[in-house]
Parts: sequence; C-alpha cells; structure tokens
Amino acid sequence: MENKLRIGIIGLGTVGCGVVKVLSKMDDVEIICAAVKNTAKKREVELNCITDNPFDIANNPNIDVVVEVAGGCAMLDVLKAAIQNKKHIVTANKELLARHGAELFDLAREHNRVILYEAAVAGGIPIILPIKTSLSANKFNSVAGILNGTTNYILTKMDEENLSYEDCLLKAQQLGFAETDPTGDVEGFDAMYKIAILANIVFGKRIDVNKIYKEGITKISALDIRYANELGYKIKLIAQAKKVDNDALDIRVHPMLVSKERPISEIKNATNAVLLNGFPVDKVMFVGPGAGEFPTASSVVGDILCIKSEIEKCGEILPMTTCHHSEYANQIDIEDTKNCYYLCIKAKNEPGEIGKIGFECGRHAINISCIIQKEAMDDGSATVIVITGECLEKDINTMISNLESDGITKVVNKIRVM
Amino acid sequence: MENKLRIGIIGLGTVGCGVVKVLSKMDDVEIICAAVKNTAKKREVELNCITDNPFDIANNPNIDVVVEVAGGCAMLDVLKAAIQNKKHIVTANKELLARHGAELFDLAREHNRVILYEAAVAGGIPIILPIKTSLSANKFNSVAGILNGTTNYILTKMDEENLSYEDCLLKAQQLGFAETDPTGDVEGFDAMYKIAILANIVFGKRIDVNKIYKEGITKISALDIRYANELGYKIKLIAQAKKVDNDALDIRVHPMLVSKERPISEIKNATNAVLLNGFPVDKVMFVGPGAGEFPTASSVVGDILCIKSEIEKCGEILPMTTCHHSEYANQIDIEDTKNCYYLCIKAKNEPGEIGKIGFECGRHAINISCIIQKEAMDDGSATVIVITGECLEKDINTMISNLESDGITKVVNKIRVM
Repeated sequence: MENKLRIGIIGLGTVGCGVVKVLSKMDDVEIICAAVKNTAKKREVELNCITDNPFDIANNPNIDVVVEVAGGCAMLDVLKAAIQNKKHIVTANKELLARHGAELFDLAREHNRVILYEAAVAGGIPIILPIKTSLSANKFNSVAGILNGTTNYILTKMDEENLSYEDCLLKAQQLGFAETDPTGDVEGFDAMYKIAILANIVFGKRIDVNKIYKEGITKISALDIRYANELGYKIKLIAQAKKVDNDALDIRVHPMLVSKERPISEIKNATNAVLLNGFPVDKVMFVGPGAGEFPTASSVVGDILCIKSEIEKCGEILPMTTCHHSEYANQIDIEDTKNCYYLCIKAKNEPGEIGKIGFECGRHAINISCIIQKEAMDDGSATVIVITGECLEKDINTMISNLESDGITKVVNKIRVM
Repeated sequence: MENKLRIGIIGLGTVGCGVVKVLSKMDDVEIICAAVKNTAKKREVELNCITDNPFDIANNPNIDVVVEVAGGCAMLDVLKAAIQNKKHIVTANKELLARHGAELFDLAREHNRVILYEAAVAGGIPIILPIKTSLSANKFNSVAGILNGTTNYILTKMDEENLSYEDCLLKAQQLGFAETDPTGDVEGFDAMYKIAILANIVFGKRIDVNKIYKEGITKISALDIRYANELGYKIKLIAQAKKVDNDALDIRVHPMLVSKERPISEIKNATNAVLLNGFPVDKVMFVGPGAGEFPTASSVVGDILCIKSEIEKCGEILPMTTCHHSEYANQIDIEDTKNCYYLCIKAKNEPGEIGKIGFECGRHAINISCIIQKEAMDDGSATVIVITGECLEKDINTMISNLESDGITKVVNKIRVM
C-alpha cells in the first residue's frame, strides 16, 4: 500500500520516546497522536498532537494501530475501546497482558484484530513470534529464564564486587537500572508477569497469575553468594514454567543456585535469557537486552512492521496467531513441587549439630549431597551449608521447622537449586 | 481450510526421515510422495509413494509444498520446475541457496511463491524468520557465529581432552558428528554457505559466495589451543559478516581466538550460536542445536506450518518476505581487512630473536600486545607466541615474509583474534 500505517501512542516514557525516535526514521509509518499523563512535561521528542486523554487515541478514526507503552493496568478500558474501534494493538505491557490478556485476546479475536507484544517479555529479544512461528512444530516441556534485568544486575554486582543487596540496589538506582520504588523488580512481580505470558504461549493454556509462586531477591546475602560460588554455583532470579505429571504446570519465580557449568549462569548485568526445551527442537536459548529505550523499541517497531506487512499482503485479516485459549492451566502449588535445596543453617557450634541436621534430613528421606561447616561465630554458633537431593517442598519445610524446634538452630536461608 | 496441506519430500536421509516422523503426528499435513536416490534402500520410515525421479514431485499437481532436504546443488532444476508449477519450497539446503538463491528467489517472486529455509542455517535455532520479522526494525552492523557443529565439536574435544585434530576428527566420525569425507565441514564450506545466507538477509544484498574468504580448522594444533587457553582465549571456527567503510561487507570464515570473557567462547560441542549486532536492538545471541535429525526437522516443519497458516488466512499470496535483492554487495578482500593476530613463531633459541620479531613488527607499525617465549626445542629452536594489536592483513603478511626471510624463523600458525 502507498498510504502510511497510522500510529497512536499511549505513553511517552523511556520506551515511548524510543519508539518515536525509531519510527521517525521510517517514511511508511506515521505517528498521528500520543497520549500522556502530563502534556506540559518537556520531552526528548516533538509531536504535533499530544493529548492527556488516551480515549482520544482509542477513538481516533485516523489511527490503524495503537501502541500502548504506558504500563500498569489503567489502560485496559482504553485498549478495549481501541479494539472495538477496529484498531490493532502493539503493547509492551506485561502486567496488563498477564492479568487481563485472555479478555483482550478474546475481544481482539471477536473484532478480527491482533495484539502483538514482543516487547512485553525480554525486551529486545525476539521470543514470542519465534515460538509462534519457527518453533510451532514443537511440544514444549519447559520455558525458563532470567527475565528481569534489574535483579540480574544487582545479583551480578553482589557477586563481582562482594557487596550487600542494599548497596547494589542503591548503585542500580543511581545508574537508572532500578526505579525509586524497586518493588516490582526486586520482589519478582515483573518476572512473574513475563513467565505468565510465556507459559500461556508455550503451553497454550490460560494462566492464573495469582497462582504463580513468587519470591524476590531481597533475602539473598553476600554470604549466600560467596558460599554458592565456593560450591560451583551462581545465584540468579529464575522464572520458570514446566510441565509436570498429567499436564499440570509448575510455574514460579524465585532465586536459584545455577551451576557454573550452565551457560545461563554466565548471563550478567541487565542481560536477559530465555531457555526453551521441547521436541523436536531440544534446547534453545535466546540472549539479549531485556530492557532499555532502544532494545524495547526494536520489538515494538518490529511488531508494527509485522502488522504493516500483513495488512499490505493479506488485507485486514491477520495470520499472526492471537493467544485465544479457553482452558485454564492446572497450576500446582509450590508445596507440591520437587527441588534440590541450598540451606544456610545457623547452628550451635558443638559436637552433634551436624549429626542432628543429618538425622532430621534422614527422618524425612531427604538426601544430603553436600554439607559443610563454616566458620564459628563469637556467639558460639556456627554456619552450616547443606545442599540436599531432590525432595518435596512440603517435606523440606517440615524438616526445617523440626530442625528449628530446639529454639537455637536457625535456617537463615533456603534457596532452590536449578 | 479443512483440506490438508500436501507435501512432497525430496531426500529421505537423516533430516528427511526426521521430517516424516514429525509430520506423521500431525493430521492437517499429508505427505503425498518422496523422491530418493535408491528406492530399494531400507529406511526408518514407511511411505506409500516413493520415486527415484524428483521431477515426479515437482510436477505432481497434488503437491502444495516441496520440501527439499537432499543437499548439494543437483536439485536446482527440480526446484525451479516445482516453483513454475506453483509449489512453495521449504529447504534445508544451504549450498543451493548460497550458490543459486538469487535465481530461485527471483523465480519464486515471479510466480508468487515462497521459499522458506529456517533449517538451512543453524539447524533448530530460529534465526531467519526472527531477522525478517521481530528484528525488522533494525539496521545491522554485523552477524557472526559458530555455524558448524562438526568443527565446534572437534575444537571442543581438542580443548577438553588435549587431543590432536586427527584424533578428534576420528572420534567425531565414530560418533556420527563428522562425515567419512569431512571436507565440507572442516574446510569451512558449510559455515561459508550459512554466513552467505545470513549476510544476504541481514544486509539485503546479493552475496558472491566465491568472494568469501575461508579457512578451515585442519591447521589448528593442540599446542595452539593450549597457548590460547594460557592467554585467556578459546579457539572457535567463526563465520562473520560485518559492515565496513562505505557499506562494503567483510565476510569470512576462519578459526579465531575468542576471549573467555565472551559467552560465545562457552558454546561447546555440536551447539551453534548466532550473534547479531544492530540498532536499535543492540546485541542478541541465539543458541541451540545446529544440526541433527529432530532439531533440523523442527525448523523444516516450522516453515511448513508457517506456509499452512498463511495460506489458510491469506489465501495464496504469502506475506513472508522472500529475499529478492537485485544489488550485489561490495565484498572486500581479506588482504584489506583489519585484525588482531595470534602468531606461533618457531625462532632460533638465541639472544636477539625476540628483538628481531619486535623490530619487524615495529617496521610495519604493528603493535605487540603480548609476546611470550615458550620452551626451547632440542634442535636449538624456541617457540615464541605473539598477540598483535589491530593491523591490516596485508601488513601482517609482509611482516611474516620478512621475518621468515632469514630462512630460519618460521611462523607456524597465524590465527585472527575476535
């Protein structure tokens, strides 16, 4: 088509400005208008039309595609209106999709529109479309990865510079890798939304984000990282979804000890990585920038160009598979998952303590693959590090409470092993 | 559409059988017939129709898509006939595409058919479609990678088990990682075809495969690998294409020293990796199985399913961008490329030798970033390892011939540094 694809943008933050900059170099795509919270605010980019009412975008008859990069769930009704007004949607909004995706995809299907969201997971890394296209012959057993750049940056710095979590968070905030309120990243919400989206595509089921087990990195200490290193592991915030018995799904986000033998343990700073395991492809890994103005814009504009080429070549009906799934996944509880564990135990520094730990593990049929007594403290306590064999989460928890029942022994940290 | 997509397969080797096995699980794709060299040969898969005349496939009116997994260039005319008979093509044939791609893509364009070839580069790794879709907003500066599993397996074993090239080749052949005649892999032909295909997509120009500089791994010694390790490098067969001044392209395949700091140095055995560097995405890496029955089938069947969904949703006109490029790339000669070099020099074990090397480098304005004298030999010679700063290939070559002009000093190996 000779006529340009007409874009409306909701949100002109870092990503929004990146998208405008990239699109401004293209003569076949035109930005009609942008909606922002505060129209008076000075921005890096100049646009002819700026509004503070996002419905101006959703209702504008001269807009073909609405790009939503505002974040949060406030724009749900706006996007619904846009779809009802026959606009295609490109969004980088992981929370909105994880919480209200099904609703939006159903509506899009009803109105024969597409919602593309390559940027919503792993920033600039192409992962959503490859799963839907090149890898569509596969049945997947698992998808896992490092999906949050902020926490990976913090954990990398803690590891490389042997600093505390607090110091590294501050550093990340100063460098703009972490927000003033870092909760969404460090408590694992961001990674949780992303793994919900990936699980939805990979397993073709609706995912209840509220049933995803989530643990952040705030309890990881420099000591844990040092001990992990001594044992041949790095500590990473891993988001994963895997198939277990009778097609149930085990979906969760929490820190894990990752063997240095695994390439993913080498993923540093704000870089993201996504691992897929399926048949017939076996294992593939995608690595790249998980966030940032331009990498994210790469995915957003990539989606826009996909829509453009589809419209040009197919007219209005788009082949890109929307994620319409009626059935909900059967998500198992963390208590019923099997894991190996790293335990950092503060015990009385006296004979028999290690025996007691061994005895409690034995009582719950938990194998110990490694146990090390660390330096004794002045308060007469000693740190003992245990790596267990695979066992049920509920069993390790009972074992821990029994171990702590003496009122002296304390399991300072429990971290799962990948 | 309710009616099945009808497939004709040319070639029932490892990949062909993998494709049949994967397709046999799908009820919306039907294999009509397969063409093979020897119809009598016993195979893992059973098909109702087998012919030894590939034109039976190209001319069969009941076939929608021709899957070519025969390899080599013998099937060029067959594929042309198939396209003229309005069939879409899915191929894993890197040599055919690298040598005759332009011709085939032009013909496909003329007849409004597509040629998909995800499996032709990096086996099961989705790379071609992602470049054309999710990453289509990017201008790329370079594409590079480990594109040949056989050579990477051999180099990994040489490194891990400190074995000679010959021993590892034999091992690879016994395990089926290398063919009886390993030339295509170990001399770099396979990687050359693949980088030609990638460069074509990434830079949008026709590539003359005969102008690609190519060096295999046969001259790499266990000693080179040991010295590289001591200096913090791994040796990998790297295929790369990068933009240089005034849009000229530097495309080549040869062994390189890769710093252990780079994730790609960790890619082991038959695994492949592709690195892309562009704007706005910055750096992304794709890792996975570069060959094998099922990983390759994953890409072939993925392409088949893409064609299916396109036909269902767009009718016959397919949106997937074919690689129609009229203009040839300006490919620079290896003599005009700039590199850092590892030199393994056999010199007389006497005072002044290192001085002489330093002098010759200085004369050609070649910086030395590292020089180490290794153990002396009984024949009165000593090995000196040099890592140079960046300089022109033609300058290092003149320097080397000057160095060797004394008839005693010998540069045993010259390996470029990534």
